[in-house]
Amino acid sequence: MTKNYQLVLNDIKSTDQMALEQAKAHLNILAKPPGSLGMLEEIAARLCAITRSPSPLIDKRCVIIAAADNGVVAEGVASAPEAVTAIQTLNIANGITGVGVIAKQFNADLIVADVGVNADLQHPNLIDKKIRKSTNNLVIEHALSLQEVELAIETGIELVKNAKESGYQLIGVGEMGIGNTTTSSAVLAALLGLRNETIANVVGKGAGLDEDAYANKIKVIETALSLHGPNQNDPIDILQKVGGLDLATMTGVYIGAAYYGLPVVIDGFISIVAALCATKLNPLTKEYMFASHHSFERGYILAMKELGLEPCLHLDMRLGEGSGCPLMFGIMDGALAVLKNMATFEAANIDTDYLEDIEKIGEGAFQ
Amino acid sequence: MTKNYQLVLNDIKSTDQMALEQAKAHLNILAKPPGSLGMLEEIAARLCAITRSPSPLIDKRCVIIAAADNGVVAEGVASAPEAVTAIQTLNIANGITGVGVIAKQFNADLIVADVGVNADLQHPNLIDKKIRKSTNNLVIEHALSLQEVELAIETGIELVKNAKESGYQLIGVGEMGIGNTTTSSAVLAALLGLRNETIANVVGKGAGLDEDAYANKIKVIETALSLHGPNQNDPIDILQKVGGLDLATMTGVYIGAAYYGLPVVIDGFISIVAALCATKLNPLTKEYMFASHHSFERGYILAMKELGLEPCLHLDMRLGEGSGCPLMFGIMDGALAVLKNMATFEAANIDTDYLEDIEKIGEGAFQ
Repeated sequence: MTKNYQLVLNDIKSTDQMALEQAKAHLNILAKPPGSLGMLEEIAARLCAITRSPSPLIDKRCVIIAAADNGVVAEGVASAPEAVTAIQTLNIANGITGVGVIAKQFNADLIVADVGVNADLQHPNLIDKKIRKSTNNLVIEHALSLQEVELAIETGIELVKNAKESGYQLIGVGEMGIGNTTTSSAVLAALLGLRNETIANVVGKGAGLDEDAYANKIKVIETALSLHGPNQNDPIDILQKVGGLDLATMTGVYIGAAYYGLPVVIDGFISIVAALCATKLNPLTKEYMFASHHSFERGYILAMKELGLEPCLHLDMRLGEGSGCPLMFGIMDGALAVLKNMATFEAANIDTDYLEDIEKIGEGAFQ
Repeated sequence: MTKNYQLVLNDIKSTDQMALEQAKAHLNILAKPPGSLGMLEEIAARLCAITRSPSPLIDKRCVIIAAADNGVVAEGVASAPEAVTAIQTLNIANGITGVGVIAKQFNADLIVADVGVNADLQHPNLIDKKIRKSTNNLVIEHALSLQEVELAIETGIELVKNAKESGYQLIGVGEMGIGNTTTSSAVLAALLGLRNETIANVVGKGAGLDEDAYANKIKVIETALSLHGPNQNDPIDILQKVGGLDLATMTGVYIGAAYYGLPVVIDGFISIVAALCATKLNPLTKEYMFASHHSFERGYILAMKELGLEPCLHLDMRLGEGSGCPLMFGIMDGALAVLKNMATFEAANIDTDYLEDIEKIGEGAFQ
């Protein structure tokens, strides 16, 4: 049975600070100048804290992808027609899109859920969690009802519960939904309390809008925000009024990851906006999150600043789908290889007082 | 027999521009907004140009590591004693240091060459290419003779020749040598024509200097440059007067990679200074190079600007050894997965005129 999201939110625990400190202490006795592996060390230590283990496992990993349509596409805010959501959702399920081929390269599976695609889809690799077909046009009415938002969040939590039960140890968060850079910009603007001309700072050109369409996209978001006046301090209210089913489900995935103690990787713009919603609902969720890549989409920068996590990949990517997550899984593999496999100063025969002691070392001494 | 480096330099060819354009054209018909995979697309296309193939292979890869000591350590410019070079060179050969464990994670081998360690080393995984033990103290005399620099460069070229003959398809460039951030800063300052106080812009604290030692390091470099007056436009002259055997060998590795048509990945500060020397000797070498991570070492930024390649990893690493290269190999794997495995718009049933055509897609249609 689906868990009530508020009970889940209230039951999220902080990560293991003792495991974090022990990992840092271990990293400091490895044969390298202290701190010289930079964020790799930080990533490794945080994985220890999250998994409450000195030797975390992240071999079984997946990208959870929420697919949904958005009623606001009626306003001409997207360069592709709504039907592309359904087509690409099936393509993602078939593993032939960007996220699929990159995930395969990094030994990651895809978990694809239809939470609101505006078509009847059936596919053996597609989980049917449809809450409704598409959303209302947010420039006219609330995108969703309160109940729909709650159900989507609980769906996200349930997807993580099932992933955990299937043995997954690491999760990425992606999406598919034509129009979802518009909803994400609207949600981010509301979370940041932006007004009028400052709204443009979180609005990008999505998959490829021309100048007129871009100006219209900004206007649509401004109009919706001024019409509905979402409560800056209430992500549920914001998601209901100007959000989407993908965003709400993804918010639930972040909440679920924290609740079930799994490290979770943010993809690009839409993914980080959902992450921000989760942290506003419970700041402890952030302890379980990792940024991956610095999205090319304009709003990413302000979202990142607000979230306070630094991405280590700068690839000018703006595809979405969760396509940046598997690349970050690879970096995390590297971080854990350092933690688990590097020699300590002692094993490396380096006296930290820098006594010269070369004779101790010979062929195969450390194999 | 070792090749004369000037003959090699004169025989480097431009990469295959037709393969580059064909790759770009293919990437543009993949089922994604054009360009939305950012640098992954650029990396994939450049790999096609370098390998002159529409489907490059980079499965067999290595990091070539040049180990050498530097006479300038007598000036107290390094936080660790000279003996650590020998100890860590053996540890690297044993695979237990940072670069070894990260390389293993990304299926890369290490090729470790002693080109100037100030000790008698023997190890089955260590290639003995010693040119001399350490260098002269550059603040007193020229670090090397012209002949020694040329021999080191030719050694680097030969290491690539042997790697190519062993089937390696992708190379990273690393080093081990106490004092080599000092030589690298001196070489970079000379290449950039820096004088007096601007020299500090390319001098960092290496593995961990205090303020006094840092001020001394800057003074040593200033003194050496004003004493020897290396020719800004002659990297050979610069390497001879203020360089090191590791830097000269690595310069040869970049030259060899270009000559033998292999993609080559730059690591951190020392590695990028050697890359810059190679591009000054022949600008075509740059076509074969990839930046990897943005080193924390201060001088990296100016070196990168001068070289004109953007690193995609931002990890605040400053270990050296070539430790950033295997992480970049992983990103390149992702880039090639996109190139080779993603569906085209046609295969993905997306009409680029955005005709709605969802019925065509079904279970397993694209497997």
